[in-house]
Parts: sequence; C-alpha cells; structure tokens
Amino acid sequence: MQRISPHLVCPALLQDALRHTFARSKIPSIPFRAHIAAPRRRLYSQAPSFFDDEMAKDDKSKSFNLKVPKGTRDWTGEDAALRDRLFQTVTDVFKRHGATTLDTPVFELKEILSGKYGEDSKLIYDLQDQGGELCSLRYDLTVPLARWLAMNPSVQSFKRYQIAKVYRRDQPAMTKGRMREFYQCDFDIAGSYDAMIPDAEVLKIATDVFDTLGWESYTIKINHRKILDGMFKAAGVKEELIRPISSAVDKLDKLPWSEVKKEMETKGLPADVADTIGDWVQRKGGDDIIEFLKTNEVLSQSEDVSKGVRDMELLFAYLDAFGARKRISFDLSLARGLDYYTGVIYEVVTEGSAPRVQGQQQEVGVGSVAAGGRYDELVGMFSGKPIPCVGISFGIDRIISIMKARGQSTQRAKDVDAFVMAFGGKGFTGMLTDRMQVAQELWAAGIKTEFSYKLKPKLPQQFKQAESAGVPLAVILGEDELKEGKVKIKVLGIKDENNPEKDGVLVDRDSMVAEIRKRLPNTA
Amino acid sequence: MQRISPHLVCPALLQDALRHTFARSKIPSIPFRAHIAAPRRRLYSQAPSFFDDEMAKDDKSKSFNLKVPKGTRDWTGEDAALRDRLFQTVTDVFKRHGATTLDTPVFELKEILSGKYGEDSKLIYDLQDQGGELCSLRYDLTVPLARWLAMNPSVQSFKRYQIAKVYRRDQPAMTKGRMREFYQCDFDIAGSYDAMIPDAEVLKIATDVFDTLGWESYTIKINHRKILDGMFKAAGVKEELIRPISSAVDKLDKLPWSEVKKEMETKGLPADVADTIGDWVQRKGGDDIIEFLKTNEVLSQSEDVSKGVRDMELLFAYLDAFGARKRISFDLSLARGLDYYTGVIYEVVTEGSAPRVQGQQQEVGVGSVAAGGRYDELVGMFSGKPIPCVGISFGIDRIISIMKARGQSTQRAKDVDAFVMAFGGKGFTGMLTDRMQVAQELWAAGIKTEFSYKLKPKLPQQFKQAESAGVPLAVILGEDELKEGKVKIKVLGIKDENNPEKDGVLVDRDSMVAEIRKRLPNTA
Repeated sequence: MQRISPHLVCPALLQDALRHTFARSKIPSIPFRAHIAAPRRRLYSQAPSFFDDEMAKDDKSKSFNLKVPKGTRDWTGEDAALRDRLFQTVTDVFKRHGATTLDTPVFELKEILSGKYGEDSKLIYDLQDQGGELCSLRYDLTVPLARWLAMNPSVQSFKRYQIAKVYRRDQPAMTKGRMREFYQCDFDIAGSYDAMIPDAEVLKIATDVFDTLGWESYTIKINHRKILDGMFKAAGVKEELIRPISSAVDKLDKLPWSEVKKEMETKGLPADVADTIGDWVQRKGGDDIIEFLKTNEVLSQSEDVSKGVRDMELLFAYLDAFGARKRISFDLSLARGLDYYTGVIYEVVTEGSAPRVQGQQQEVGVGSVAAGGRYDELVGMFSGKPIPCVGISFGIDRIISIMKARGQSTQRAKDVDAFVMAFGGKGFTGMLTDRMQVAQELWAAGIKTEFSYKLKPKLPQQFKQAESAGVPLAVILGEDELKEGKVKIKVLGIKDENNPEKDGVLVDRDSMVAEIRKRLPNTA
Repeated sequence: MQRISPHLVCPALLQDALRHTFARSKIPSIPFRAHIAAPRRRLYSQAPSFFDDEMAKDDKSKSFNLKVPKGTRDWTGEDAALRDRLFQTVTDVFKRHGATTLDTPVFELKEILSGKYGEDSKLIYDLQDQGGELCSLRYDLTVPLARWLAMNPSVQSFKRYQIAKVYRRDQPAMTKGRMREFYQCDFDIAGSYDAMIPDAEVLKIATDVFDTLGWESYTIKINHRKILDGMFKAAGVKEELIRPISSAVDKLDKLPWSEVKKEMETKGLPADVADTIGDWVQRKGGDDIIEFLKTNEVLSQSEDVSKGVRDMELLFAYLDAFGARKRISFDLSLARGLDYYTGVIYEVVTEGSAPRVQGQQQEVGVGSVAAGGRYDELVGMFSGKPIPCVGISFGIDRIISIMKARGQSTQRAKDVDAFVMAFGGKGFTGMLTDRMQVAQELWAAGIKTEFSYKLKPKLPQQFKQAESAGVPLAVILGEDELKEGKVKIKVLGIKDENNPEKDGVLVDRDSMVAEIRKRLPNTA
C-alpha cells in the first residue's frame, strides 16, 4: 500500500538526504579500473580461488563503477544515528500500544504483488528468472501484511508494526524526492471491532510519535471517503468525472482555488458545480465542519455524508478521550490517491520551513510525513475473507530530512563515553595491557569505551583521537598512579581555567566507574 | 564474505526455525483461487482502479499460491521477539566497543559482486534487466563494507556493525539448514593498527555476546592461517595438494581421524605425511600449543609457523588483559573454508545439545554460531589500496534455534503491561471513553497498555483477552469507584487464596501509575 507518495515535491527538505545519495552516485561515475594488487600466489591455489584465478580474470579486461545503484544510498554516521533514534522512538510508541512486529521476506512471489498497484505495477522490481519461482521485490509493506493475514486464517485480529525498506523502479529524481530503495514504517490494526476505536488509536499513535520527537508544529489532516463520495454525488458530479475531480481537489494544498477550478472546468465540470464543490471542500476545522455537514441543506440529505459524519463524531469523541485532538484538522479537501481506502483517511503535514528550490523561494507544501487510513477489503483479495484494517505509514527518510533541516540532529554519530589512554616518560611501554584491563572494566560496567590500537601511542595522539570522535571523558593511566591504585578522569573540552577539573581528577580505581558515571551526560 | 557456512549440518537445532519456513511453504502449496469479493462498484472508477478493473482482470483467469518464496520465512510472534532481543544484545555490545552502523542497499551493482565468491557466484540472485543498471542482491555484508571503504578513501579506519539479511540462491534443504534469505550480523574493524590488538577486541566481543546471552557452554576455536600453511609446507605437502588436504583437516570436528586420513590418502597424500599432519592438527589447548609449535623440531624451523606463533602469543596476552581467555581453544585443525583470510581465524561452537534427527540420536556437531577472521586484502580489490580488516559474523538464525531448543525463549511475544477493563451492572455503558482516558494516562507514563475495542465488552471477555495475551496486570474501572477517584488494580493469575491481592486492590487514581509500576515484573 502506497500511503506516502514518494512523488510529492518536497525539494529543500530532502536535499540533504538526496545529496548523500546522488552526490555519491556521481562521485564514482568515472569508471574505476579494477585496480588489483598483483595477485599474491597463495597456497590454496588448486581450485579457482578468490585472489588468484577469479580476480586475475577480472583484472584482464574489466573496469567497474565504484558506486551504489541509482536511487539507493548507504546509511552511516549522523544520518544512521538519527535514523536509529527515529526507529527507537516509533518502535517504543508502537509497543506501548501492544503491537508486535511482523518481518516479511524482501521478495514475494510475483503473483502475490500483481494486480495490487494499478498502473504503478510497472515500477515493481522483478528478480531474474534463474529457474524456480518468479519473485519480485516488495513494493510496500501492506500487501505482505495482507498476504500474511490471508495465510494465517486463525489470526482474526493483529496489531503489527513493520519497519523495512521497499523498492520502486521509479526514475530517481533529485528535485522530487524519489528513491528506488526507501524505508516504510507501518503500524496497522487488523480485525473486526466497534466503529472508529482502532482508528482513534492509530491517530493517537501519530501524535505520540511526533510529540515524542519534540515537533511543535504539525497538523493531522483528516477526512472520510464516504463524506467525499457523498459530496461529489450531492453536487451533481457525473460518476465518470468523480475520480478526476477528486484528484483536482487533492491539489488544493498546493494550488489556489482558481487553478483547481480551472482544472475542473477543463475536465468538463460545469462552473456552477465546481463552485459548489469549491465552497464545500475548502472548509477545514473541527466540530464546526461536522455541524456544517449536518445542517447544510443538500449535504445533510446524503446518506453517504451522514454515515461519514457519524464516524467522525465518534472519532472526535475518542480522540478527546485520548487527549489527541489538538493537532487534528478536519479537512474536506483531503482525498488521498489510493483507491483502496474505505473510511477515514489522514495525512500528517508540517509547515516548519518554506523550502528553497534552486535558490528561489517557492511556496511549496512540505509534503506529508505520515499518512494512512482504513482499508477494509484488501485482505479479502487474497483469502476471500475480508479482515477490516486501519493503519498508518511514517515516511522515515522525509522525517529525517526535516529533522536535519531543523537542526534536530545534534547527537553524536559515534556514541562513545570514555577513552582510555596512557602516558609516561622515558622508557614508556605504552601500558597496552593496562589500558585493555581498564577498558574491560568499563565495558563490564556498560560504559562505551575505546582506546588506541597502538602499542605506544603518544598522549597528544590519544587526545586527538578521543576529541575527534567527540568522546566526553578520558581515563588517563600513568604507571606511578596505577601502582597506587589510582587513575585520572578528565572531562574533555573544559575551557574554563577556574574549573577545578580542568586538568582532571585523580580517583581510586575502585570508584572509577562511579566517578565516570557521575560525569557522563545523559546517564541515569 | 561467507564466514558462516549455511551448509553445515545442524538439523535438530534448526528444526524449529525450519519448521516455520518449510511447513509454511507447504501449507499453501494447494493453489488458492484468487477468491475475490464481488468487485464493489466504487465511485472512483474512471481510471483503472484497484478494486474494479485490475482485480476483475485477475479474477477472470488467475489462481495463485498463497505462500512465501521457497527458502524464505516470515518472522513474527515469539521468534521475532527472540530475534529482537538478540539484535538488542549484539547491538549493545557492539556500541559498547564504539562501533557505528553501516547500512547498505539490499542490491549492489552486479559487477561489484562478481569475482568475489569463487564458485559460489552462481548462488547470487540477479535482478531482472528492466533497463538501466544490472544489479544483484547482496550475498554477504563484507563485500558491501569493502565497497564502501573503497568509495570513501578519506576513511582509513572504521569500526562498523551491520545486521541485515543476505541472499543465496541455494537449494533450500531442511536437514541442512540452508535458507535463501537469512540474517547476518557482522562486526568488523578496518584500519592499520599494531598487531593483534583489534583481533583481540573482536574475540572479546564474541565472549561478551554469548556471556550476555547467558550461555554457559561454548568454545571459541581459534587458529592462524600462517600456522596452518606452515604446517602443511613443513610436513611436505605438495602445493597443489594443500587446499584439498586443508579441506580434509577441516572435517576433523565431524569425522574421526581414520576417515580424514583415508580422504587424504585418496587425494594422493603419502600415509606417513598424513600421519605427521594428523599428529600435529589434532592438538588443541592454549599456551601448551604455543609451546609445542615453538619446540617441535620441524615446525620451529618454519618461518610461517613462527610468524603465526608470535601473533598468537600477543593475542593470548591481550585476551588475558581483556579477561576473555576462558572460552578460547587453540585448535590446529580449524581451517575455515574461505580463501581471503590472511591471519587469525575463529569459529564459536557450542555443545549444548546432541540433536535428534528424525527421531534417532545422532552424534552431529552443532555447527558454528559465529565465525570470522582477519582479511587484509579484500578492500584493495576495489580501490587498489588495501585496508587491513578483522571481523566476526554472528549466525542469528542458528543462535535463535539453539536458544529455543534450550528453552531460553520464555519471553512473551506480546509485551503488554496492563489491560484496562470496565464492568457494571444493569444499564452498563461500557465506559469506553473512561477506559480510553485511563489507557492514555498509562501510555503517557510509558506503560504498555491495551483495552478492548468493543463498546460494551463483558468482563469475562476482557479477562480472557488480557490473559490470552499474557498481560500481567488488569486495571478495572467501575462507575461508582471512578466517581470516588479510585480504580482497581489486579495482578492476573494469582491462585493463592490467602494472597491479599487475589481480588485486586482499590487504589487512588492519582497513585495508579505508581501502584502499577510496583506490581510489574522487570521494571525499575
């Protein structure tokens, strides 16, 4: 299920993530010569061997591009640390709500995916037919969930999350944020329950995630497919025009009404019908929208609208009980692209920045960072026995880009607490095994510790290594001190001359761990 | 880099994991009819739509297998919980040693993988040529690491871990534990350092992981490629025979010496040379092996052996400093299959169980649960500038099978702390929004909480739902109690009639969170 369109324009916020991907794709586009050290004649040489025959063959004629495939990226350093923090946050929230994980294979039988994505099926990656079953890389995490539910008919209800990469053979486009491999992070509740209760919990989860991340400006746009359908019918839109008109309405977050109306007229909608729709769908709010739908002369007569309104009333009551109503905007223009939604639909948007595109300020919506809705008929496609589902998908790559743009990514990529070092005068041995023993004591106490892998490192070298890795504490060993059962602890980077710890403090080795813990940031 | 052979026979211990995979592969082998609910005529119907046109097309003629591809599996329930616990354990250990993560794309350019795996290259999954670059699924995590290091020449040292699935188009075999998609969990230290220091840390990490998992019987078999090479040369093995003889020696953990000797003779080794080798390689121990290698008349003359022995002496000294020598067995028969090792090699084995195969007791080695070694020349294959590396790979699937066989998997798959329920007499409303409010308070306090998604659930239903999910605590709401600002907390499953909490305790709502925390198992 493609809940988050990877095609939304959100250029500047994605710039950074993209810079990694595409810059990296570019760097090595000069073909590298497979430059191999002269094959060392190894002992194991009878069978075709790694270093000799195979590589020698390659060496003869082949050159290769040293790069990742187009539209993919490596994750490391600060980005990976931020990603992991985000995974931890969402996983904690999901588990707090009683979800368990489901992890599915990266490829599925081709026939499982076929017929599920409409025109986008052409974007599915197929594996080469090397004999045996025909398989394709997963396109989303929702069809695998539906396949699993259908395969396990004894499971009639399931609250699951899955964080995994999905694959779309799209033309990667830097300005449009399209990647071929990207993360989806899905939470879904499957099962037949009383109306709107799981729907409310999914929305509560959305607020929990962004509140936990410390986001202060975001909006959860929410609408209901039945209300949307009912409005179009009530306005007098002919059935064959409903889809194109719905797609025009969905653009109201990016275009002014005049443009949207023009598109509707081009598509054959009479101007007065367009104006009626324009009057209705440009409304957003909360209870006032419900009031409007219930009292409007035309809309209050629509059975579809009434059904949707009853759902929304329940939903709002439940969101109030959850204390999760604050960010909700009942937005009658929200349509969502996918066909399989059958009830409430939603998108989380944030307006934290007005992105720049190629140097010029543009008024571009930042795109959604999470989206989802109710889809009651997908599982039935596999098993014939529908299981109602409601869920949400978080756009990890996009959330990370936004957090980076906001400077929320200040954490250290390399998260080491202490660096064990040694110094000495003439005849200094390096104290390697002493450093190892101390490191071992710190590891045993759960303190993240490194030391120089040199036999006799110089003290400035050791300080440099620690400081360049952003390590906050040094444990400094001297031979005389160690004999007296003492080590020096030094908080790195103290500039204040009057700080009594500027030059470190000598502590008993027995209390070393406790003294380190006292000085570590963010440690209980 | 294939450090853990997926081909080792380890039947019973893998039975359980395999049962999931292959049983599941079998269940749905009866073709399911794509049984689709009669396409509901939706409003959005002009464009080819998900429920109508596309599926109607499928419905006409297609039937499909509802299964996962051969050799793959879904992870869920207890297995997934155990897997996550294992990931957490190894990640904690890796981070304690200052490692950062590297996450690479699931596919690489085909040419990056080619020529790296010798004969096993035929097991690589290729993506179909759908235009553009030719790509293949990763076969291991080591070649991607080497590719990354070569692409980032400014990085001259790197301590990285990666936990990810790898892909091998092998014939899946239940009795042999071969999967086509399985986890690798790698830790590697890249960089030029003083001899054996990172090697010792990698071995320390291996002991940390298994000690943290509470394993009491495991052995780290260790050997050195230079010693092995030196022994064969010194015994007079002709160069072209060294590889076959080495492969025979590697079988000593599964076959008696007489069988191995027979294989050597069949391969053309004179009986007396075989006996010399047999005398040497059947030795295992610690310092006594070093002593033997240094004092043996023939071996002490070998330059290769001497080099290896110097490394091993350093390594043992460093392992002593790390307090990590206890599990180490210097085993001269360890050879490891792969060619690219250039120094120390190791395998972690456990003898916790004598597995049963199809009902009969068999004496089968349990196979290795982690393995690795030093490989100094792999990065140079990409960049021409070798970066020495040493690493280890943990066999997650196999470790999980062993833990399950040992009954170490007692944790709840669904990890919910509290279930909020309500009861009432005649005219009971279900108290849904009250339950929601209380759930919300518990979530806010970080307590994992669920409640029934029914409007008016019966009390026994609610107890059943909580108990079947293994939830330890119930928070029970009654209308009268709630008016007085009280809720009842009940530890579920108390059988003792004399326990004062058997029927629950009424507590003030203000102290509800604290009272719950007091009663939760394993909560600080």
